[in-house]
This record gives sequence, C-alpha cells and structure tokens, in this order.
Amino acid sequence: MNTSIFLKTLNEEISQQNYGENPVELYEPIRYIMSLGGKRLRPLMTILSTALFTDDWQKAVKPAIAVEIFHNFTLMHDDIMDKAPLRRGKPTVHEKWNENIAILSGDVMLVQAYELLLFVEDAKFKKALKRFNRTAAEVCEGQQLDMNFEKRESVSEEEYLEMIKLKTSVLVGFAMELGGIIAGADDNSCELLYQFGINIGLGFQLKDDLLDVYGDPDKFGKQVGGDIIANKKTFLLIEALEKASGETRETLNYWLSLETFEASLKVKAVTEIYDQLGIKKITEDKINAYFNIGFESLKSLDIEESRKAALIEFTEMLIDREV
Amino acid sequence: MNTSIFLKTLNEEISQQNYGENPVELYEPIRYIMSLGGKRLRPLMTILSTALFTDDWQKAVKPAIAVEIFHNFTLMHDDIMDKAPLRRGKPTVHEKWNENIAILSGDVMLVQAYELLLFVEDAKFKKALKRFNRTAAEVCEGQQLDMNFEKRESVSEEEYLEMIKLKTSVLVGFAMELGGIIAGADDNSCELLYQFGINIGLGFQLKDDLLDVYGDPDKFGKQVGGDIIANKKTFLLIEALEKASGETRETLNYWLSLETFEASLKVKAVTEIYDQLGIKKITEDKINAYFNIGFESLKSLDIEESRKAALIEFTEMLIDREV
Repeated sequence: MNTSIFLKTLNEEISQQNYGENPVELYEPIRYIMSLGGKRLRPLMTILSTALFTDDWQKAVKPAIAVEIFHNFTLMHDDIMDKAPLRRGKPTVHEKWNENIAILSGDVMLVQAYELLLFVEDAKFKKALKRFNRTAAEVCEGQQLDMNFEKRESVSEEEYLEMIKLKTSVLVGFAMELGGIIAGADDNSCELLYQFGINIGLGFQLKDDLLDVYGDPDKFGKQVGGDIIANKKTFLLIEALEKASGETRETLNYWLSLETFEASLKVKAVTEIYDQLGIKKITEDKINAYFNIGFESLKSLDIEESRKAALIEFTEMLIDREV
Repeated sequence: MNTSIFLKTLNEEISQQNYGENPVELYEPIRYIMSLGGKRLRPLMTILSTALFTDDWQKAVKPAIAVEIFHNFTLMHDDIMDKAPLRRGKPTVHEKWNENIAILSGDVMLVQAYELLLFVEDAKFKKALKRFNRTAAEVCEGQQLDMNFEKRESVSEEEYLEMIKLKTSVLVGFAMELGGIIAGADDNSCELLYQFGINIGLGFQLKDDLLDVYGDPDKFGKQVGGDIIANKKTFLLIEALEKASGETRETLNYWLSLETFEASLKVKAVTEIYDQLGIKKITEDKINAYFNIGFESLKSLDIEESRKAALIEFTEMLIDREV
C-alpha cells in the first residue's frame, strides 16, 4: 500500500533535514529528539489526507514534517515540565543536556516548524498558518490544563475529554486538515478532515488509557498498571470515581490515599473495582463512539471511495493496535 | 513629532490585545509581562521605518506588535535560564508563578507573534515570515552563545560582538527591515534598513556595557558597576583582558579571582584599570563607529531627506541617553 512509501519518504526527508549547526548545544538536541523515531503518525496523516484528493502527495511532505517537528517541540518542553527522565527509552533532552538547552532548542524547533510550513503554496499559506497558530495555542492550553488537573482533587469526565482534545487531538485534526488545505480541498471538506482527526485522536488517547490497564503485558511496551500506580486521572479512574458508591468507593479511595503500597496489589485491587463497575466496557464504548464519528466524517467527504482506502486501512490498523 | 503619536498608538493597541483567557495560568503571565512597559523601541522602529516610505504607517502597527511580543517572549524564557528574579523592577514570570508556566506562556507568546505577523499583506507575507524565522533562530543562537561564554575562561572581542549581534542586534535589524517590507520597499532598501538596525543595535548594546561602568549614578537605573561585581564578560572587560599586561594584568586577574570582596573596592579598582588602559575611549570609539555605519546606511537610502527626520531624531535621542 501507499502508506509505506509515504513513511519511507517522510523518514528520508526527516533524516536529511538541516536543523542548523552552531552553536552545537542548540541544534544537536533537535537532531537527537527527531532521530528517536516514533511512528510519525501525524505527518503520515497529513500525506494520506493530501493523497485523498491528488496523486501529487509529494507537495505535502515538507509541511507534514512541520507537524512532526512541532509535535517533537511539545515533547521536548513537556518533558521538562513533567520532569520525565526517558522519552522512547532514551534520556530526555533536559536530562542528557540540561533544562536551559531543552527550553532553547525547543524554541528553535517551534521556529523551524514555521519555516517548513512555508512550503505550503502561497495561495493557501495564510489559511494553513492561521489554523496552525490556533492549534499550537490549543496544545499549550491542553498541557497547562493537564498540569492543573494533576494538582486538583477531582476532574470531571467533560473536563478530562476537553483537556485531551486540546493536548493531543487538535494536532491530529490539524494534521488531517493541513493535508486537505495543501490539496486545495474546499472549506467543508477541510472541516470534515479536521473532525475525522479530532475524533480518531480522542479515540486513540482513550485507547492509551485503556491499554495501560487492560493491555496484554506481553505486547504492551510499558508496565501495565502504571497509571493506577501513579493515581493518574485517566478516563478510567474518572469514570470509576463518578460511578463508585458505598464500599466500592471507600475501597477505591483507600487505594488512592496510600502513600506506600505494593504496586501489584494496588493494580490488582483497582482493576477489580474497574471490573465491578464495568469501566472497561464504558471506555470501549466511548472509544468506538469516537472512532465511529470520525469515520462518519470521512464517509461524508465527497470523493471517490477508492481514494479513501489507504487512509481507512491505516486508521484501522492504528485502532487495532495493542501497544 | 510623529514618534509620540506612534508610541501612543502602539501602547493603546498593546493594551487592547486579546492574548487569551483560559486557562488563566497560561495567559495571565503574557498580560503581566506585556504590561511591565519598556520603551517599545523595536516596534517603534518598525513603524518609523514604514513611515519613511508612506504616510499609511497604521498598517505597520500590528506587525510591529509581533516584534514586541517576540522580544518579550525571549525575555520570559531568558529570565528562566538566567534565574533572574526581577524584570523592570517586578518579579519575573517564573518567580511570580513558576518555571513551567514561564516555559509554556512563553511558547504561546511565540505563537502569538506569528499570529500578529499575519497582518502583513499577502504579497509581502512570506518574505516577512522568512526573515522573522531567520531572526528568531539567530536570537536563540545568541542566547545559547551567551550562556556558553559565561562558562568559558576567555572570550575574544570578535566572539563577543558576534554574540551580541545575534542576541540583540538582529532583532533591531529585523524591526527596521519589517517596516520596509510592509511599506513595499525594494530589497536593496530593506537591506539598508536592516544594516541600519544591526549597527544601531550593536552601538546600543556596547553603550549598555559602557554605562554600567561609566554611567552617572544619579541617572543610571541600575547599580553602577554591576557588571564588574559579577565578572560579566562585557566589551570593556574583554578589551581590558586583551590589552592589559604585567602588573596591570595581575591586578585585574586578582580582582577577577576573588570570591569574596568589598563591592565598591572592586568596582573602583577595576574601573581604574579600565582608565589606565583607555577602555572608555576604545569603547566610545567602537560605539560611534557602529552608529556612523548605521547612519551611513540610512543616508544611502534613496528617499527624501525630510522623511528621514523622525527616525534620525528618535535614534539620536536614544544614542544620547544616559540610562
């Protein structure tokens, strides 16, 4: 299928990027984080989106890399804020160098994202830039909300969904929309692409939450139950706190209140509560609802069905992932 | 003169900016740093530059604010890196809130600078954006060099001048050039405006170094001698280290090596060494040389001399400043 050609082209182009040379402290961290890999989902979606409308998908490659650079810029800065030691199994930039270098290299990455967006044709450029600006601000809003929620006693389902929409889904939405803008799609089509991306993105994020508890330990990359151990306010925990009452609620609050505990016992106990409350099913239903809304948007898109095949195949593969 | 109308318009427009509302932790620091004042030199220079060519200077106002927002973004992030407690006599953002908020609010400010650049007309927009991107990256390079130099044993005059050019002068150059781009000036004129800004900016920065030692304590806002106390590698110290020999060099190195000292004695001693070596004159000559090159660029600009009057008057006022 085309997607593997798109991915190969993307990775070649990314490896050939000239991020800059001097001072080396500023530019080496950019090469480092961009070389850590990742699935390149967002830029792939931009190219797949352009390819819905035209065979000239090549013109989407450099703007797609703008999306990937922006994404990695947010990872570099978020890792400072979250004091994360590792990113994709390797030391984070602020750990490998220092915080100042991670701040400043990230700043330059954001500038470089704008530089690659310049490869959008003149007639479409201001539209792409406005949408990118809005998206970039929303991603920052999502990160701020995420930090705020960590300190809060309770977070509602609605608040949580708004936060993950801003922090992660709007960029998936923009990645899709950008592909449409580059292809010259009309405003209505661009909006449908955006809605496709937003809803698929929300589904992915909730699937992350689900897999952290119900993933297959043999396939899941991280420790299953990590979110439970850390009392992370995921969709599952928020639902459980909204649904639990009586003894179940007391037991849940007991495990949440413990400062020291045997990790495996806590994971087992909280998972049992989720099981009692039917949280797995609730989450799966929510995920499927988002995926369905996303695919409805794609169905409404007025282009030949055959052109949609690659995007559908790619998205279904992502949906079925177990890692 | 026109300049006061420009400044009034700028400050009104800045106070009316809608930076954003939610989450408040993200947007309040932007309103805070933008309200701390400052002389608004850079955006004023953009408007003065546009006004060289056209009476329709209003169209430069919003893009000029992009320059001011970018400048304040760099201050917000630099203050984190420099662990600065105060900015314009008020707590810095990372002190008043925290580092994470200063990182993230700064990121949004950079995005907002791009959003205001969108007010440059379509036909000129990509040129303005490319030049802005180049400038933004260079400012980050300058900040990284500045941090590198702090840890180095010695810095040459050439390296220092390159660093301050990147860290501060290129933005003054861009502010001037942007005004030309907005006015529709040709490439050669834009280059002359850029050279004017670069050289005036270099002169200003060296004047800062000079005033820190030779400023009038009654007029100078900060403590005279602050750079000497901190062993800051300014143009004066770098020149002195290049020129000093024998006993003078030993005395200078002695004062630089002391970990505890009476501040006023160190300031007096180092200033005497500067006096012996004629550092004041060397610095003044260098400053004047930059100002002269700047004014030569302006002279070469092929427009009516009468149109240059406001910019010349404004720049001379800045040159004569004693604070």
